[in-house]
Amino acid sequence: MRILVVNPNTTASMTEAIARTARQYASAGTEIVPLTPLFGADGIDCNFESLLSAVAVMDRVATYDQPYDAVVMAGFGEHGREGLQEITDVPVIDIAESSAHVALMLGRSYSVVTTLDRSVGSIEDRLLTAGLSARCASVRSTGMSTMELDRDPAAALEAIVGQARQAVETDRAEVVCLGCGGMAGLDDAITEAVGVPVVDPVAAGIRMAEAVVGLRLTTSKVRTYAAPEAKSVVGWPLSKYLAL
Amino acid sequence: MRILVVNPNTTASMTEAIARTARQYASAGTEIVPLTPLFGADGIDCNFESLLSAVAVMDRVATYDQPYDAVVMAGFGEHGREGLQEITDVPVIDIAESSAHVALMLGRSYSVVTTLDRSVGSIEDRLLTAGLSARCASVRSTGMSTMELDRDPAAALEAIVGQARQAVETDRAEVVCLGCGGMAGLDDAITEAVGVPVVDPVAAGIRMAEAVVGLRLTTSKVRTYAAPEAKSVVGWPLSKYLAL
Amino acid sequence: MRILVVNPNTTASMTEAIARTARQYASAGTEIVPLTPLFGADGIDCNFESLLSAVAVMDRVATYDQPYDAVVMAGFGEHGREGLQEITDVPVIDIAESSAHVALMLGRSYSVVTTLDRSVGSIEDRLLTAGLSARCASVRSTGMSTMELDRDPAAALEAIVGQARQAVETDRAEVVCLGCGGMAGLDDAITEAVGVPVVDPVAAGIRMAEAVVGLRLTTSKVRTYAAPEAKSVVGWPLSKYLAL
Amino acid sequence: MRILVVNPNTTASMTEAIARTARQYASAGTEIVPLTPLFGADGIDCNFESLLSAVAVMDRVATYDQPYDAVVMAGFGEHGREGLQEITDVPVIDIAESSAHVALMLGRSYSVVTTLDRSVGSIEDRLLTAGLSARCASVRSTGMSTMELDRDPAAALEAIVGQARQAVETDRAEVVCLGCGGMAGLDDAITEAVGVPVVDPVAAGIRMAEAVVGLRLTTSKVRTYAAPEAKSVVGWPLSKYLAL
Amino acid sequence: MRILVVNPNTTASMTEAIARTARQYASAGTEIVPLTPLFGADGIDCNFESLLSAVAVMDRVATYDQPYDAVVMAGFGEHGREGLQEITDVPVIDIAESSAHVALMLGRSYSVVTTLDRSVGSIEDRLLTAGLSARCASVRSTGMSTMELDRDPAAALEAIVGQARQAVETDRAEVVCLGCGGMAGLDDAITEAVGVPVVDPVAAGIRMAEAVVGLRLTTSKVRTYAAPEAKSVVGWPLSKYLAL
Amino acid sequence: MRILVVNPNTTASMTEAIARTARQYASAGTEIVPLTPLFGADGIDCNFESLLSAVAVMDRVATYDQPYDAVVMAGFGEHGREGLQEITDVPVIDIAESSAHVALMLGRSYSVVTTLDRSVGSIEDRLLTAGLSARCASVRSTGMSTMELDRDPAAALEAIVGQARQAVETDRAEVVCLGCGGMAGLDDAITEAVGVPVVDPVAAGIRMAEAVVGLRLTTSKVRTYAAPEAKSVVGWPLSKYLAL
Repeated sequence: MRILVVNPNTTASMTEAIARTARQYASAGTEIVPLTPLFGADGIDCNFESLLSAVAVMDRVATYDQPYDAVVMAGFGEHGREGLQEITDVPVIDIAESSAHVALMLGRSYSVVTTLDRSVGSIEDRLLTAGLSARCASVRSTGMSTMELDRDPAAALEAIVGQARQAVETDRAEVVCLGCGGMAGLDDAITEAVGVPVVDPVAAGIRMAEAVVGLRLTTSKVRTYAAPEAKSVVGWPLSKYLAL
Repeated sequence: MRILVVNPNTTASMTEAIARTARQYASAGTEIVPLTPLFGADGIDCNFESLLSAVAVMDRVATYDQPYDAVVMAGFGEHGREGLQEITDVPVIDIAESSAHVALMLGRSYSVVTTLDRSVGSIEDRLLTAGLSARCASVRSTGMSTMELDRDPAAALEAIVGQARQAVETDRAEVVCLGCGGMAGLDDAITEAVGVPVVDPVAAGIRMAEAVVGLRLTTSKVRTYAAPEAKSVVGWPLSKYLAL
Repeated sequence: MRILVVNPNTTASMTEAIARTARQYASAGTEIVPLTPLFGADGIDCNFESLLSAVAVMDRVATYDQPYDAVVMAGFGEHGREGLQEITDVPVIDIAESSAHVALMLGRSYSVVTTLDRSVGSIEDRLLTAGLSARCASVRSTGMSTMELDRDPAAALEAIVGQARQAVETDRAEVVCLGCGGMAGLDDAITEAVGVPVVDPVAAGIRMAEAVVGLRLTTSKVRTYAAPEAKSVVGWPLSKYLAL
Repeated sequence: MRILVVNPNTTASMTEAIARTARQYASAGTEIVPLTPLFGADGIDCNFESLLSAVAVMDRVATYDQPYDAVVMAGFGEHGREGLQEITDVPVIDIAESSAHVALMLGRSYSVVTTLDRSVGSIEDRLLTAGLSARCASVRSTGMSTMELDRDPAAALEAIVGQARQAVETDRAEVVCLGCGGMAGLDDAITEAVGVPVVDPVAAGIRMAEAVVGLRLTTSKVRTYAAPEAKSVVGWPLSKYLAL
Repeated sequence: MRILVVNPNTTASMTEAIARTARQYASAGTEIVPLTPLFGADGIDCNFESLLSAVAVMDRVATYDQPYDAVVMAGFGEHGREGLQEITDVPVIDIAESSAHVALMLGRSYSVVTTLDRSVGSIEDRLLTAGLSARCASVRSTGMSTMELDRDPAAALEAIVGQARQAVETDRAEVVCLGCGGMAGLDDAITEAVGVPVVDPVAAGIRMAEAVVGLRLTTSKVRTYAAPEAKSVVGWPLSKYLAL
Repeated sequence: MRILVVNPNTTASMTEAIARTARQYASAGTEIVPLTPLFGADGIDCNFESLLSAVAVMDRVATYDQPYDAVVMAGFGEHGREGLQEITDVPVIDIAESSAHVALMLGRSYSVVTTLDRSVGSIEDRLLTAGLSARCASVRSTGMSTMELDRDPAAALEAIVGQARQAVETDRAEVVCLGCGGMAGLDDAITEAVGVPVVDPVAAGIRMAEAVVGLRLTTSKVRTYAAPEAKSVVGWPLSKYLAL
């Protein structure tokens, strides 16, 4: 089984980190193919960057020319899953949704702990339109950007643990989802501190992709996610026309 | 007052039709500036095309170099309003949301009649995330694409009237919103046939933009729609790098 | 365009204050006609007074004998919009609903700051039945009545700013709606203190009325808001039978 | 125990019919005191008439000078319960809400069958604001007004049975509530025809009033339904000033 | 009228306490028949114990061989009401649901104060599936088990009052429901301390049962709660096969 | 990895059929251990039987004395998952919920096609309390019991296809979940007939169990699903006391 794992931003080192987590949780026999978009922001923190990444991710997958069995979109709360489902025939798995699926199997309610305050709304919207928000106790933010998390892991851990604790005690979450690919590897420490299962989103995405592929099922093409009709699209795929 | 009215697709004749409706309903003293994106599909019928148009619309507004007081996004149910709100300081008005605002002031519930069946979900999601779906009785489709509507106006009118009648009689809608910019000019005939107010989305968008500008208010920048932070964005604005 | 602006209470000085705000935000060419009910309470703070005002407002409009193009009901969270829609053919605009419409165009969520704690429920119900509560972050009260607000503007401002700040920081509102006609003129100071757009309800009501009239649309008469059937109504209009 | 049962309309014969049903279901020792408002419509079919009746019912109870233990408001889907709760200290029971309470104890979901199509919205709103709509399968109308039901009982029965059957078979209701006081006495025939429990609203209201009084509980005065503050109310109680 | 009141746990002294409350609020002429299950836990604090009690309660009622008119299930938030409705023809009344019905007639919203934190979810689920959660402001816990409440009534009262006060002040509840049969007799003291109506669940259950029986209505058998079809059931009724 | 797959009914041949499907979809290295309860009904079609099976399944797992890594509960819409989560430390996976998780990854909305009409409510409740109902388009029934499905596979296929088609065309489902273990093996034929992905619930349950175990996560014990406290439980485990 070959799974494309697409980083939404243009930072290659993050793509590698995502790939490491993906490989750590993949079953034997699953090949992880990490991809980085060819344009867009080096980190995704707002709707402008997220919409741009949605197109860049579609562009990257559309121009990938090897066979694959599933795509995992490794952005938490980003746009674009619906579009990618239309232009490929294999299952497309969003890691924020995957985290929610896993969390709902482990506890009565879950919270997400993400980076910046301004991203809370996008994550809530992703869960809402995916039909997964009824048992979401809260989406909380540490106020630290992904880059800040990277720079100061000890402070990051403390901030995430603080929000996770409030999620469990105040919001009554029973499971915590890490709301950013850059939080990989912190799950054990957070579980130890807070006492609840902690879901790593990339790991969840990989396991959900494997599950769906193993069921020999793929995206429904009956209506919303049918392939686009043939029509004139100026400049597509964008990377073919870009002089970067 | 100068209002940018942005067509989401790349068909110039549709931009002109949108501009005509916009000017018909604008107040004296309002200048309408129609814009067409520089890349993307010539008609928007799916998520892939819609996400691409979201970026193309942001690109078109970002590279527009004259002053303006508001932007009306003239796509019905498309992505991108949240991103455009971040990269401009003036009010950004979505015509699907505007139609719902107007409809809610006219009747107890409303329906949308749109083009293709596959677009129903996108429109429902736009209304859901805008907090406007509670009194949406239904989103119905004629099964005719925008281009088919253009080619055969008589058949279009009949199809829209048929769906509007079912919306009123079966779904209990009291107002009907036309769910496509290409349906402009049909509202009177539909009202006559069905007996309920019919909202033209471009007209609604223009009037809502004028209302908000007149209140001397603009997008809240306190959290979700704050300006993007300075960071490295490869290839932006895309039109500067595209060799079309 | 002639717009009736009806104060729900019987205090003439409040009618005048409402008229001043209305005229400040009205477009050139819009004539504001302020009306005061002939019976009822001098301030509306509970359901008993609100229901009485609903009938008094209907009575006042029903006995007004000049032409007009729209009615703005200048009570925040009061009963009666549905009834008035039945007995007049022009658009009837509620200022609480108008505030929500405007707020939803400016931010991802909004809060209302009103006067007494006991009014919170009525406002929530008005927004709920209008289909506008999904993105209402909270309805908060200062605990000061309208008359107290009038008597001590400095204390009023402080109390409103305090609640607005909590709405933004705790409830995550991105826009604040002033939930009382008597708060007119405070919006700029609150925006300055809290950093979010502040919606004046009377101003919002006037602009929404102008928008709807400009669309040449009016209340749907197909079902809920059809004119009452002819029947025997003892004592109507009440003001004709009252010996005050 | 003395229970006031207030007809919302001014037709004395309907007050008597309501009183008969009330007495039929009241416990031994319960005295039924039927009241008719002093002004308003002879039948309630729209919001204008309903709001007027809300005030007329409050006026009638406010001017009733004998002791009583509870008030049953015998209009189905009318306004005013919240106001009456403020101006009296005893429990105030709405028959539409009572029907829903009873229905929820008998089956997984319920439907209401009412008179005119235009009343459906008011009933839905009453159930929504009462927090009782989650298991309401539908509100259906026969299209016959109360007076038509009275004039042709056989046709009325047939129409109600037809709607009740659709409620059970199509909407999956397991209990049917008669949505009009004028449908009294039809419950057994409808149960026989459709095979589900049928709730008479006046009977339900009386039994709920007895239950609450027996618990020695009454309306919470802590916030929403506290007594109105003393203030100047022009023309109240209206019946004292009306020269009819 | 004979009402079975079934304690969900196997502690006979609790059955007696429940019977005392039931008799205190029952009408003259109502006979209370208390029943204790023959197997299961001596107190119900989790889903395992609750599901076991659901079967034990069904077993106890199924093997009760005298006539009766209604069953009151005296567990707060336990499983089993739906099953018992299938195997008996008389009304089956759950005390948690009864409390909510009564509370909704007394105030705009209500809270439940229960024992252990872990029971909050079960109570929320019971109210959710009963369609009664829309106006539930909160379910709060004292952190004290039923047995602890019994052992230290003064501490229990203090803990319940503390949670009830937060329910009223923070969650904006206007009525408080005692979420445990073991809290009987505390209602007056809590009302005095907090100033809102307090609903005793067993009392509410008895009055609701009397109300429904007086309406000559019983469980709908049209679909969900029809009698089980004849089939092979190994070991039923369990108490006949148990060698305890 | 050893996964217990528990049939909720006492029919051994159904346990075997479930095991066959489980093994067909399990990964290499996963051992399937099928279990049959020791008491209860030979088929589950109502709440009485479902609650009895919940206890019988808990009893069967509690008395199973070999190691295992997860439990899959192979009943569709049955009670008991919450209880079993409390008495075991490994993940407990419900097949109805698993089906919904998988369906949500494949299309914008899904429907369930189950056996008897009376089971629709139980399935809706299971999805509702699991937080998975927002994108459930409908739960439909064929009207055929499991045994009837077994006896006449051709009629069963036709009935399921008929309901699946209505789910897709009328209810706008994009994925169909088979709502009964006894429908195993029909998925390909239904997909071919209706053109949407069809989810086999046992297969989905196995794949979800493998995914969760592979994440090295298990049920949150922080609150709702903590182990029961030590207390006196008469007759547990039941099978030890039953003389069958």
